[in-house]
Amino acid sequence: MHIPRRKIINDPVHGFITIDHPLIFSIIAHPFYQRLRRIHQMALAQLVYPGAVHTRLHHSLGAYHLMCLAINELKNKGAQITPDEEVAAKAAILMHDIGHGPFSHALENVLIPGVDHEEISLAIMHALNKELHGQLDLTIRLFTGNYHKFFLHQLISSQLDVDRMDYLTRDSFFTGVSEGVIGYDRILKMFVAHDNQLMIEEKGIYSVEKFLVARRQMYWQVYLHKTVLAAEKMLVKIITRARETGAISFSPSLNGFLHKPHTSQTVHQQLPAFCELDDYDVIGSVKCWATHEDVVLSTLCKNLLKRDLLKCKLQTERFDEALVQQKTKAVMESLNITSHEAGYFVFTGEAINTTYKLGDEHINVLYKDETVKGISNVDNPLIHQTLSMPVKKFYICYLNI
Amino acid sequence: MHIPRRKIINDPVHGFITIDHPLIFSIIAHPFYQRLRRIHQMALAQLVYPGAVHTRLHHSLGAYHLMCLAINELKNKGAQITPDEEVAAKAAILMHDIGHGPFSHALENVLIPGVDHEEISLAIMHALNKELHGQLDLTIRLFTGNYHKFFLHQLISSQLDVDRMDYLTRDSFFTGVSEGVIGYDRILKMFVAHDNQLMIEEKGIYSVEKFLVARRQMYWQVYLHKTVLAAEKMLVKIITRARETGAISFSPSLNGFLHKPHTSQTVHQQLPAFCELDDYDVIGSVKCWATHEDVVLSTLCKNLLKRDLLKCKLQTERFDEALVQQKTKAVMESLNITSHEAGYFVFTGEAINTTYKLGDEHINVLYKDETVKGISNVDNPLIHQTLSMPVKKFYICYLNI
Amino acid sequence: MHIPRRKIINDPVHGFITIDHPLIFSIIAHPFYQRLRRIHQMALAQLVYPGAVHTRLHHSLGAYHLMCLAINELKNKGAQITPDEEVAAKAAILMHDIGHGPFSHALENVLIPGVDHEEISLAIMHALNKELHGQLDLTIRLFTGNYHKFFLHQLISSQLDVDRMDYLTRDSFFTGVSEGVIGYDRILKMFVAHDNQLMIEEKGIYSVEKFLVARRQMYWQVYLHKTVLAAEKMLVKIITRARETGAISFSPSLNGFLHKPHTSQTVHQQLPAFCELDDYDVIGSVKCWATHEDVVLSTLCKNLLKRDLLKCKLQTERFDEALVQQKTKAVMESLNITSHEAGYFVFTGEAINTTYKLGDEHINVLYKDETVKGISNVDNPLIHQTLSMPVKKFYICYLNI
Amino acid sequence: MHIPRRKIINDPVHGFITIDHPLIFSIIAHPFYQRLRRIHQMALAQLVYPGAVHTRLHHSLGAYHLMCLAINELKNKGAQITPDEEVAAKAAILMHDIGHGPFSHALENVLIPGVDHEEISLAIMHALNKELHGQLDLTIRLFTGNYHKFFLHQLISSQLDVDRMDYLTRDSFFTGVSEGVIGYDRILKMFVAHDNQLMIEEKGIYSVEKFLVARRQMYWQVYLHKTVLAAEKMLVKIITRARETGAISFSPSLNGFLHKPHTSQTVHQQLPAFCELDDYDVIGSVKCWATHEDVVLSTLCKNLLKRDLLKCKLQTERFDEALVQQKTKAVMESLNITSHEAGYFVFTGEAINTTYKLGDEHINVLYKDETVKGISNVDNPLIHQTLSMPVKKFYICYLNI
Repeated sequence: MHIPRRKIINDPVHGFITIDHPLIFSIIAHPFYQRLRRIHQMALAQLVYPGAVHTRLHHSLGAYHLMCLAINELKNKGAQITPDEEVAAKAAILMHDIGHGPFSHALENVLIPGVDHEEISLAIMHALNKELHGQLDLTIRLFTGNYHKFFLHQLISSQLDVDRMDYLTRDSFFTGVSEGVIGYDRILKMFVAHDNQLMIEEKGIYSVEKFLVARRQMYWQVYLHKTVLAAEKMLVKIITRARETGAISFSPSLNGFLHKPHTSQTVHQQLPAFCELDDYDVIGSVKCWATHEDVVLSTLCKNLLKRDLLKCKLQTERFDEALVQQKTKAVMESLNITSHEAGYFVFTGEAINTTYKLGDEHINVLYKDETVKGISNVDNPLIHQTLSMPVKKFYICYLNI
Repeated sequence: MHIPRRKIINDPVHGFITIDHPLIFSIIAHPFYQRLRRIHQMALAQLVYPGAVHTRLHHSLGAYHLMCLAINELKNKGAQITPDEEVAAKAAILMHDIGHGPFSHALENVLIPGVDHEEISLAIMHALNKELHGQLDLTIRLFTGNYHKFFLHQLISSQLDVDRMDYLTRDSFFTGVSEGVIGYDRILKMFVAHDNQLMIEEKGIYSVEKFLVARRQMYWQVYLHKTVLAAEKMLVKIITRARETGAISFSPSLNGFLHKPHTSQTVHQQLPAFCELDDYDVIGSVKCWATHEDVVLSTLCKNLLKRDLLKCKLQTERFDEALVQQKTKAVMESLNITSHEAGYFVFTGEAINTTYKLGDEHINVLYKDETVKGISNVDNPLIHQTLSMPVKKFYICYLNI
Repeated sequence: MHIPRRKIINDPVHGFITIDHPLIFSIIAHPFYQRLRRIHQMALAQLVYPGAVHTRLHHSLGAYHLMCLAINELKNKGAQITPDEEVAAKAAILMHDIGHGPFSHALENVLIPGVDHEEISLAIMHALNKELHGQLDLTIRLFTGNYHKFFLHQLISSQLDVDRMDYLTRDSFFTGVSEGVIGYDRILKMFVAHDNQLMIEEKGIYSVEKFLVARRQMYWQVYLHKTVLAAEKMLVKIITRARETGAISFSPSLNGFLHKPHTSQTVHQQLPAFCELDDYDVIGSVKCWATHEDVVLSTLCKNLLKRDLLKCKLQTERFDEALVQQKTKAVMESLNITSHEAGYFVFTGEAINTTYKLGDEHINVLYKDETVKGISNVDNPLIHQTLSMPVKKFYICYLNI
Repeated sequence: MHIPRRKIINDPVHGFITIDHPLIFSIIAHPFYQRLRRIHQMALAQLVYPGAVHTRLHHSLGAYHLMCLAINELKNKGAQITPDEEVAAKAAILMHDIGHGPFSHALENVLIPGVDHEEISLAIMHALNKELHGQLDLTIRLFTGNYHKFFLHQLISSQLDVDRMDYLTRDSFFTGVSEGVIGYDRILKMFVAHDNQLMIEEKGIYSVEKFLVARRQMYWQVYLHKTVLAAEKMLVKIITRARETGAISFSPSLNGFLHKPHTSQTVHQQLPAFCELDDYDVIGSVKCWATHEDVVLSTLCKNLLKRDLLKCKLQTERFDEALVQQKTKAVMESLNITSHEAGYFVFTGEAINTTYKLGDEHINVLYKDETVKGISNVDNPLIHQTLSMPVKKFYICYLNI
């Protein structure tokens, strides 16, 4: 008897993850993918939730696992999915975050202004596709939504994709915030492919309701927690100040992105350098800069390392400019710095909870009589309320003196 | 109404951890303690178990939580514990691992040969005690076992201490290896203080049995997993080679420990430098050395980063010297290196499972009639077997060519 | 050393429950309390959720455990609670459901029209208090809300009492409906006693939001699940028909309640007989009546036993009378029965979700500046929506022919 | 689009169980199967573990689910299993316990001396097979081991069958005894069919070790817990005394089995009556007999209902006859009964833990080089010890006066 090559990976969240296709093995073994081990999924959330130290690699393995389950469910319900489509969908979800840089969202558009991670993910997929002699052609079509079986794309990217299902479940697991538990297994059981679209069976509506509420809770309790926000904004300020003062990093790759202008185009040329970057370059540099001669930079770095964070407040109205002025003045005097420099320690902004953008693709519900309704047309006031709720808060961060 | 200062921390393993004493707040806020955020609890086990990325800080918070529960149980059963003793015991367990360096056990006795982490923990406690004007006097007595209520020391360090209970539970949780679940809550309920000794009530024997078996399973399945072993030995070889070749790190603190001889005494003088070190210095350096001119060093570093690990085999008998020779020769030819250099890619050693050292302090069982028996005298063949089982395996690591 | 009498009980939901007071032991050992072992917590929900077979005894032990935790939290935050008050509060919650009859809510007001279970619980407490020579005096005052430390009553009975926290958690656990998980541990941590009232700290608002949404989900997905509703209404019809036809039960106690008129007053006289009743009397009788000569009674009984349930539909509008007529006619013809008899197989009604009665006691939120707001005045549209949502649906049950 | 008929059932233990084949639907809907809802899986264990009230129906659904997973794994590893074989294996496991009578093991061989539940299960399968026009032919062959793909039988009944995997997991879940958690998912992943035999891959040995230890722990901590033993023996004594005194039950079916002699043959003729029996007949009768004129019968019944159980002790040596005499005499005097009658309140016996009968079918381990070893020949002393440990204890039960 021949046992085909299979590997099982322990995942405390989903149980055992099975790898059983050569293409999936190739992707996972690639240094570009292994790099995701060194990028925290939740950036600096661990400063509030000490368990939240899981990685992008772990999340994308989890999303891959949910993709396996989802495809199985759809096939059991009669959807036609060929083996090639199946492995392409799995490959796509495995790589959906491969373009994330150090500290993912926290530094997105900061290290490389104007270029988001999806664009880089796609670029890396193209690079890998060359190495793999075109084996990722279909993967790329699914990822970009250029394939007639659109439900496969929707499993990768839509309001109810396996990406969101994994990260909410995983982030809830590792933070210990039980409010974020979404019951993904029931949602998966409710999936159905209809007219090439991904839909939810009617009796899954309560699960969608639960999903939307849980997601909202995770935003305000975790992702936009005021202390997490403060820490991540400090990291942004550190990068900005390092760039401004020309502070050098020990990491040649990081230096390249800090001190040379980049556009979407140059990034493509610098892909190998980008694929060297991870959280270790950034924190290693922060450790070095803690003794930098620039007092703004060194203070930010020192304070971040010892978790002496800026104070942060969130509210539904914009903060009074007078308050900002007062805090700024106090910092200028206390640290003996200029008004511009004080801006690194006192600043305001907007925190946005993007639970469900109404302009975004819809979640469709398939009724028993085969009618289809968008989720916002379903007779469920709690869903309407969740969807239409204010999604923006204003924050102020300041050095407590 | 005055609400005393309290903080609750989400722990996915134990639920909510409560901090409610000024001394505990002071310790947690100290940079020496915050450093533990940047040291992985399980070194490189995450290369096999992707969820195992939790930190020493998280573990010591968890052990602190179990200490709170244990003290509560003992008091409910009539043990006399004063408020001062209580906070001292909590402080001691919080700091029991504060002397761990980068990658904890994996590099223990490697970065600083001959000095183990308990010695450094104690040195750091003394340093902190000075800062805190003697508030840790009792803590240090409990930690070192110089106090008449010896059961408080045993909660910190003994066969059934809260340290082991936390790390087995936590490591099992984050790896997803259910075999390591120990039922710590029942063990805690079975604790009793008798004649100033920590004991287990008679009906807790099955829980002890479970604990010992679980621990054994974690050793062979996780801590001494052949792939984890290979990765951690590669890290040791990297440090050794860096030292040998005089490779410079970007981190001044790491350089100090790499390239200057250290004894137990000099370490005490270098405590501040030691307290700068964490996993980021090591992995940052490994990233730099991946392009080092020394082919041995750069190969080890590159391979570790892309998880291209040495092969590893474990067996109960010593490996045949001829096999080592053969593998060594192959590497010498393939990489064009000397026999000495090939020793970085082909080597053997012993992996030891220290489930229960018979010479170690005993677990005592208190019977209903107040007689006391050591666990190895209890009528339970499974416990005897577990305690007396072979605890050593031989390993070989080699570069697969 | 004297170990006071203590007992720990394994609870898969909360872990270990500790019993350590003689009064609590006396109550638990009493036959009136042990009877609760033979009353299912969720009546016939197990016909849809096979795991939901837990008992009233288990639930009240769980609520007792949460009371222990809640009191501990409040004391840690400075609330003055004497040992006598503590044990009285625990005794009260332990007995809060002691007046439930067979199949609890499903047959409430059916076996004994016009008398609800709280009234009987109180009567039983008075009876026990006599046996216990007045040891329950304070317990009864707390239960009925006649005590100045009103927060102790609110822990027993209010919008956020430990009763609801336990049953939502427990019912969610045993059904496997993850949507009902409420994070009770965090709510408990947010409790505070202020001006003798039970309040929630400001930062607990998201947990309250979660609690209200979870509760709503449990109502529609579990408690008012159409199939559960159908089964429980069949049981009501069986009791009604048995009464109407004078069908005799093997159980003398059940016969008494079936065939003699009862008022609130006679019930008090018949307390011993009531305390003999449990689910076994009812199901045992249903098994006997499955061969009863009355075709209506025997059909209902047979069908319930083999889980051949009436069809049930739920909707937001009242059902059309014509539909009822049509279904009734079909049944009359098929079973050859009268219109009155067909009413046992075709009927309509209202299912009510009592998430939060606005006239009910409020949940109060305590802000950091010590202001207090009712939960419906808090700035949280999702809570408002949940509170104000339609709580009623109409149902029709009918025999499928 | 046609969605084939599918049903998902919430199981708190395994998640969602999917039913998707007409034959499986037919079996589950049959009154013979629905009867299992009214038989507790763990008899009277709930008197010690209040959560242990789950049913035989729930367990057999769970075993069915594990069968689905196991077959999937084997197919993924290349085993040839036809759709017919697959559904037959699922049907067989679903019905493996269908022959259990009231209180399962506790009354096995008591209500019908000399006939065990497997024999009755098989008889019921044959009866159902007639109704289903031979659809269960293959099911019966698999169940009885008369099919060349023997591994399918081994999944149903062997040392590592899905039956044991489900009941250990489920009983551990509902009792809350974490020591019984076995990691069934990993064992399933290690299954492989080789030479038509079910085997475990080499790297699954630690999981087998864990399984054997967990099972042993469940025996001594739960199944043979002294208080559970006492309660179940009281139930046996009640049945025996009712038979002896000719006490009549309200249940005609129970009367038939109490008061008429039965052999294996008559049982087959009385199958319909047997299929009417469940826990409700027994407990309903116990409630009636609590006021029976025979003092032995009524005392046993009353005490069982109020959980006033016989004392029970377990030890490795046989109890001294003098002790039995002394206890017996005390009961004779106290209750004013004969020596024969006192035997209902004072008695001894043997409790047996059948972890792994060495004469039983072996667990086979498949090594990478395709050699096969029986588990007791594997190089693992802990497994040997577990397998060879004393499996018998002696007990005494007596009325505490």
